[in-house]
Amino acid sequence: MSWFFLSLAAGIGSILLALGLFGYIMKKDSGTEKMRKISFSIKEGALAYLRRQNRTLAVFVVIMAFIIGMVSGFLKNPIMGVSMAISYVLGSVCTTIAAYVGMRAAVETNVRVAAAAQRGLKAAFPIAFYGGAVMGLFVVGVSLLGIVVLFFIFKMGFGWSDSDAASVILGFSFGASALALFAKAGGGIYTKTADISADLVGKIELGIPEDDPRNPAVIADNVGDNVGDVAGMGADLTDSYIASIIATMIIGSELGGGILTTLPLLIASVGLFSSMIGLVFVTRSIKKSPGRALNMGTFSTCFIFVVLLFLITRFSGLEGSRWLGVFLPTVSGLAAGVIIGLTSDYFTSIEKKPTKQVAEASTTGAAINILTGFSYGLVSVAPPVLCISAATIVAWYIAKIFSVDPFYGVANAALGMLSIVGMIISADAYGPISDNAKGVAEQSGLGDDVVAITDMLDAAGNTSKAITKGFAIGSAALTVLALFAAYTHLVDIQSLDLISPKVIAGIFIGAVMPPLLSALLILSVGRNSERMIEEIRRQFREIPGLMEGKANPDYAKCVDIATAGALKELILPGVLSIIAPVLTLAVFGKEALAGFLAGSIVTGIIFALFMANSGGSWDNAKKYIEEGHHGGKGSDAHKAAVVGDTVGDPFKDTAGPSLNTMITVMSLVAEVFAPLILLIIA
Amino acid sequence: MSWFFLSLAAGIGSILLALGLFGYIMKKDSGTEKMRKISFSIKEGALAYLRRQNRTLAVFVVIMAFIIGMVSGFLKNPIMGVSMAISYVLGSVCTTIAAYVGMRAAVETNVRVAAAAQRGLKAAFPIAFYGGAVMGLFVVGVSLLGIVVLFFIFKMGFGWSDSDAASVILGFSFGASALALFAKAGGGIYTKTADISADLVGKIELGIPEDDPRNPAVIADNVGDNVGDVAGMGADLTDSYIASIIATMIIGSELGGGILTTLPLLIASVGLFSSMIGLVFVTRSIKKSPGRALNMGTFSTCFIFVVLLFLITRFSGLEGSRWLGVFLPTVSGLAAGVIIGLTSDYFTSIEKKPTKQVAEASTTGAAINILTGFSYGLVSVAPPVLCISAATIVAWYIAKIFSVDPFYGVANAALGMLSIVGMIISADAYGPISDNAKGVAEQSGLGDDVVAITDMLDAAGNTSKAITKGFAIGSAALTVLALFAAYTHLVDIQSLDLISPKVIAGIFIGAVMPPLLSALLILSVGRNSERMIEEIRRQFREIPGLMEGKANPDYAKCVDIATAGALKELILPGVLSIIAPVLTLAVFGKEALAGFLAGSIVTGIIFALFMANSGGSWDNAKKYIEEGHHGGKGSDAHKAAVVGDTVGDPFKDTAGPSLNTMITVMSLVAEVFAPLILLIIA
Repeated sequence: MSWFFLSLAAGIGSILLALGLFGYIMKKDSGTEKMRKISFSIKEGALAYLRRQNRTLAVFVVIMAFIIGMVSGFLKNPIMGVSMAISYVLGSVCTTIAAYVGMRAAVETNVRVAAAAQRGLKAAFPIAFYGGAVMGLFVVGVSLLGIVVLFFIFKMGFGWSDSDAASVILGFSFGASALALFAKAGGGIYTKTADISADLVGKIELGIPEDDPRNPAVIADNVGDNVGDVAGMGADLTDSYIASIIATMIIGSELGGGILTTLPLLIASVGLFSSMIGLVFVTRSIKKSPGRALNMGTFSTCFIFVVLLFLITRFSGLEGSRWLGVFLPTVSGLAAGVIIGLTSDYFTSIEKKPTKQVAEASTTGAAINILTGFSYGLVSVAPPVLCISAATIVAWYIAKIFSVDPFYGVANAALGMLSIVGMIISADAYGPISDNAKGVAEQSGLGDDVVAITDMLDAAGNTSKAITKGFAIGSAALTVLALFAAYTHLVDIQSLDLISPKVIAGIFIGAVMPPLLSALLILSVGRNSERMIEEIRRQFREIPGLMEGKANPDYAKCVDIATAGALKELILPGVLSIIAPVLTLAVFGKEALAGFLAGSIVTGIIFALFMANSGGSWDNAKKYIEEGHHGGKGSDAHKAAVVGDTVGDPFKDTAGPSLNTMITVMSLVAEVFAPLILLIIA
Repeated sequence: MSWFFLSLAAGIGSILLALGLFGYIMKKDSGTEKMRKISFSIKEGALAYLRRQNRTLAVFVVIMAFIIGMVSGFLKNPIMGVSMAISYVLGSVCTTIAAYVGMRAAVETNVRVAAAAQRGLKAAFPIAFYGGAVMGLFVVGVSLLGIVVLFFIFKMGFGWSDSDAASVILGFSFGASALALFAKAGGGIYTKTADISADLVGKIELGIPEDDPRNPAVIADNVGDNVGDVAGMGADLTDSYIASIIATMIIGSELGGGILTTLPLLIASVGLFSSMIGLVFVTRSIKKSPGRALNMGTFSTCFIFVVLLFLITRFSGLEGSRWLGVFLPTVSGLAAGVIIGLTSDYFTSIEKKPTKQVAEASTTGAAINILTGFSYGLVSVAPPVLCISAATIVAWYIAKIFSVDPFYGVANAALGMLSIVGMIISADAYGPISDNAKGVAEQSGLGDDVVAITDMLDAAGNTSKAITKGFAIGSAALTVLALFAAYTHLVDIQSLDLISPKVIAGIFIGAVMPPLLSALLILSVGRNSERMIEEIRRQFREIPGLMEGKANPDYAKCVDIATAGALKELILPGVLSIIAPVLTLAVFGKEALAGFLAGSIVTGIIFALFMANSGGSWDNAKKYIEEGHHGGKGSDAHKAAVVGDTVGDPFKDTAGPSLNTMITVMSLVAEVFAPLILLIIA
């Protein structure tokens, strides 16, 4: 029962710490009347988006819960059907609440960061970081708590076997991924619609600065940072986190259960404790620089995690040296995550060669800037994919050497990457909070000095942002590999022969999905932006005195357009990710679906990495030029770099990050529906 | 022996017809003194490039021939080793000569098309088309002749078994792909270096028109159309053509030989006859419109081919209904080729929705133009991939139903797509000839009317160009699938279990290769362009009177830069495509290499299609605006569309088409070197 108490302690401790930090932030000065007004508008917009998203999500979740309950009830028994449906609803409700709290914290924090920035960098940094930590700790705590409580009820309350209990909890994971799909893809469309529209009309057509309060889209843009980057990235990582824990539990339960089922919970718990301890190191290192403090936090969390992991596996009760077959694969996953993050950083950092070359390419025009960023993005795919391959092979064979099932090893590698997700999300959510603080500072006229401080805060988050994205994609890859393994177990595929036309066709079709879904999401942003651009132009045309700053724009209208459009545009890609695996299974059979999943994982990772890194590099190339290189702001090179940045926006913030969630959703769909469809077609 | 005489007749007939057409063209008027001078410069530049390419190629071929001879001599016996080395050299020499003749014809034709354009569209069209046909017929005739003569010598002269003879001829295919790699990737870097540099300095910086004789890069640009588009695309299709014939022969020979080994030669022969007859239809339909005449040629060739194919398979001597197991898969391949071509046409045609939307997106700036073209390019991947999957499944199961080996069916589907390649290359080479004719007309001041006629000629080639690219990619996919099958036979993999970390790692690494190689090629174009842009700027700065048209630019210097740079930049991607499969095999074993090939096929096709179609769409969106829509030439929308077009240039003419060749090369490397490496590591 130690798993129950440890996980309970980790989950509840994490939630309490998050609430404590929230309280600490709320006590801080929230600035002038004007600042509070702006902050209020952002909060209103963000909450309006969340309300509308949750209403749509609720309809979707109820329908899906019904289907899942029926399917599972039919295949197993009514009680398990109802339990799975409830797990599903709980999964989406828990993560929705967590995202809500995190976003609420983010919008309350940004104005306070702006206010504190008047007193300097060291006053502002902890507020921004703690704001991110509320998100990180709350969302991870709630997720772990949800899993452990459900498992406890099913196992102890209902007396189910480990295997039954774990497979019903899969519903919880599926529910979390439903939210992730909405938050990441919908939020991604929202944020980039607002961002692109605000820039195109404001900066390019009218020549007014970024975050200028005269721009009707400025609030929508700020809201977008919160709904897309804070809530979205949090949801994405949480989705993988939950899936990796449950996939490992399922595999463990099929290997005999007992400690193999509960060990993932223990590992996740010590990971969460490590993140909490890591927070202390961030606060302690702040005297040096914010960037180093954040990195210090990540690395010390890793270190603490490895030590605790050693203890928990060493004394897990696994006979002989078998504990090494869990410990080493988990460490290899963690190491792969860090390396992937560092290579992402290399390809996107403002201080490294690739981004500098993209900036230099801007001097020969927008086309060469695009081509260079595009190419480096493609090149950047190679190292992480090699890392993922290496981690898979290492985890597989080390597990085998120590008599642990190789798939259990791979699943633990995924878990290794994700255990420290509490820290990762905290450091990541810090980014958009600083970005928003900058927006608030600019709009409320706090002066260039204060804006510069918020800028420095923002820049400090870059490495951790890159590392986060690397973690998110790498862990999604390993998690989906674990889900792939779970699928083949489930439908009883012993070996999957690649030399078969159905498997080949499945791979081809699966491989086409990620590029297709990316394209649909990008086209959505384009269509949605067109609507919003029309609206911004209309306001400047029809509201007298707006350009002169004598009248206020109608912010709410732009927020509305972004919200309604994002949810509408989500329908086609969302439906496709559910229908395509089902159709492949129904038409070509279970081997083809396995091929489909394999194909989608491969191109999913390639496109996710390429889009994230190209986008990041274009963004930083623009910032590099704005620092005064190649002619600085307003030069031709800068204009070219702005084109690249705009192209990169939906790459890195809409399509790229949504792919993780979509391949997870496709894998979960396969898992949940395959047994029924196989029954029907048999 | 009927296979020998029929193939001999087809090969020799095709070569004679090509030479006859060449003679016909040479008798036509070659225009004014000025036109001849320009044409002479283009010819000089193109030949200079070819000379330098062939010198580099020669070194490469000699080294590779030595290695191949040693490997094969060591594995089998010295005579077979020497024979394979000779086949390899012959493969590259034959295709080099064919490409040389084709290009020679192209450069002689363009000035005569320009001269004839003064007398109207109907006078100019047949010359342009016959110029392309010289390339199409000569290159395909020489390829078929080479295969059939070698096979005859090995089988009849040396008395080898079908299987030995066919496997040694694989050297011929490998030799052809060596040329294809240089012609397609090197030529692709060349042509886009010149194109982008000429445009960026000429059109954008200095505001002088396209093809203006004052631009020092203008000759290099015209040369590029010939070395990249004529020679390159021809080499690409020929490479797949040869590989598909030989792969089918190898599979056939392993199934017992006899008619199964020689049937591919018979099918290729009737395909070549169909192409020759198809030429008549083009000439006959010319009264309607050039575009319809070209389509008429393609479709009538398909129809004649199906009839002849029916006869040749029905009376092939295959017992019972087994002939249907060859006939139907071949037709399914042909049908898939046409459908892929038509969908490519839909996504790139100036008259269809996607391209019009890209044009419309240009009104909101370059970034949205890029995003829209990028997205439609990704969407365009789905239909062809579904077609290829369907053709694979259909060919497999139909072959099985009629007691034919399923892999033989898939190989025949590839052959079906490629049999009519004589017609396809003819229609394709017509494109750059018209394009060059336009260049000559503009530079020699023939007036707007004549330029407009050459423009119409150029536009007429668009559908066939799109169909060609579809054919090239689709057939490469099926050919490589056949090579993949041949590889698994060769290294004795009975079933390839996807649920294995080495296979998964192999798939991941293989899948990364196409994006990586694309990126390297695009970066090459960027680097090479930088050198050339410097040179063009230098000439305008240092040659007095150049801008005023009083002095002549130094064309040769630009031709030199493009040539030297293209060959230098080719080294890294070329070496990678040879080393990567060898390393994967040596480190992870033969199953991993099979996974590697599968992974590279999947992403190779996706990237090749996406890049070809995005590029085509951006190009036509620009043309659409130049027709007067959205403000026409010089408008902001036009400037945005030019950015898209420039980004698309290396996509569609360098990276995209090179991928076919590179995945073929990787498959052939696997085939040739795997047995030795397995021996060494065993």
